[in-house]
Amino acid sequence: MQVRQIQSSGGQRTFAAIMDTGDEAMEQVCRFAQRERITGAQITGIGAFERAVLRYFDWDKKEYRDIPVDEQVEVASLIGDIGEDEQGEPAVHIHLVVGRRDGRALAGHLKTGHVRPTLELIVTESPAHLCRRKDAETGLNLIKLREGATR
Amino acid sequence: MQVRQIQSSGGQRTFAAIMDTGDEAMEQVCRFAQRERITGAQITGIGAFERAVLRYFDWDKKEYRDIPVDEQVEVASLIGDIGEDEQGEPAVHIHLVVGRRDGRALAGHLKTGHVRPTLELIVTESPAHLCRRKDAETGLNLIKLREGATR
Amino acid sequence: MQVRQIQSSGGQRTFAAIMDTGDEAMEQVCRFAQRERITGAQITGIGAFERAVLRYFDWDKKEYRDIPVDEQVEVASLIGDIGEDEQGEPAVHIHLVVGRRDGRALAGHLKTGHVRPTLELIVTESPAHLCRRKDAETGLNLIKLREGATR
Repeated sequence: MQVRQIQSSGGQRTFAAIMDTGDEAMEQVCRFAQRERITGAQITGIGAFERAVLRYFDWDKKEYRDIPVDEQVEVASLIGDIGEDEQGEPAVHIHLVVGRRDGRALAGHLKTGHVRPTLELIVTESPAHLCRRKDAETGLNLIKLREGATR
Repeated sequence: MQVRQIQSSGGQRTFAAIMDTGDEAMEQVCRFAQRERITGAQITGIGAFERAVLRYFDWDKKEYRDIPVDEQVEVASLIGDIGEDEQGEPAVHIHLVVGRRDGRALAGHLKTGHVRPTLELIVTESPAHLCRRKDAETGLNLIKLREGATR
Repeated sequence: MQVRQIQSSGGQRTFAAIMDTGDEAMEQVCRFAQRERITGAQITGIGAFERAVLRYFDWDKKEYRDIPVDEQVEVASLIGDIGEDEQGEPAVHIHLVVGRRDGRALAGHLKTGHVRPTLELIVTESPAHLCRRKDAETGLNLIKLREGATR
């Protein structure tokens, strides 16, 4: 993955992160977030995957169900955010929509995505931390804004 | 819904707006826009809905057709904007893509979406107003940029 | 297409670009990028098309396969970027997800899209150039960040 800071203003850095064939997207974004110590950011991107695993949260079972995508797909929309977990580590949350050979779309939470030939992400940092805390009902790490932020 | 301003520079505020189980997304975004007097902004987000109603604009009939989604879905892409209507009130326009249990995607205009367990939005304000005016042909409120802006 | 600069800070301009019935989206974005000399930007948007042609990159053949969409569709997610090609001209890259009458989604690379009645884009410039160079393996113009940016 190539990374370049393309903007910095008011404590807000913006990065272009360009992945190549062979990169696994979740791993690369997590490593990038750790290296740059990003604890609050939004992500958008497009590209293509050789294969991927999407996830769907099964509300009744309170667990993720994997949706394997074993074919080359266009990444038509990738939207995500980077927060901070209870251990102070970056927590990456990405959803995406992919397009198959005939254009039919699949959508869900990103578990893994193997890039081919490129994935172009823009990562816009915010000065504020987005803290994730384990939710008792679902077991998921959900964003909890600081006290005083709730309205 | 929890809201926190995560950035402010050059008259441009950025907010994180985090919704919880039970929140209806359109109602919450409209109330937020009114409270913060937002008349120009873009929105991106991800999350999940317990159920939703999408809409498709039927060009021949010049009216929206409802597409009920009566199941838990991943919100894989939510993109929208906030403008200002002829009465000076915030006008919220959101489109989205949702993913079903098997990954199949549905897409359209957002009428209503009941959050479960979370919807994470980033709202980036612009200093300029995005004015919507009723379009004679369609009856829709379309963005009309000020005179001098047209090229 | 109507265009208005809605923000400028730190060498970073943000534009609202609003297209109307009859505009072809790729052509309009390319003309806009040339006129404003944009060589690094991200794009997000929503709207509707009267018809469109999506594309899927066939990895085995190393060529795009067209996916004609001959019906009115909601543009549920449009994400893209503007870079600079080897001749110094703007290079526009857009992916999108569209929703059909029954909500079923199609997704892919945008070849052409005929707007009806509106397409609302936000274009956020970055001070840095995003240079595209022809990739030997695929024949595609992929973003190559400058030396020193690779990690």
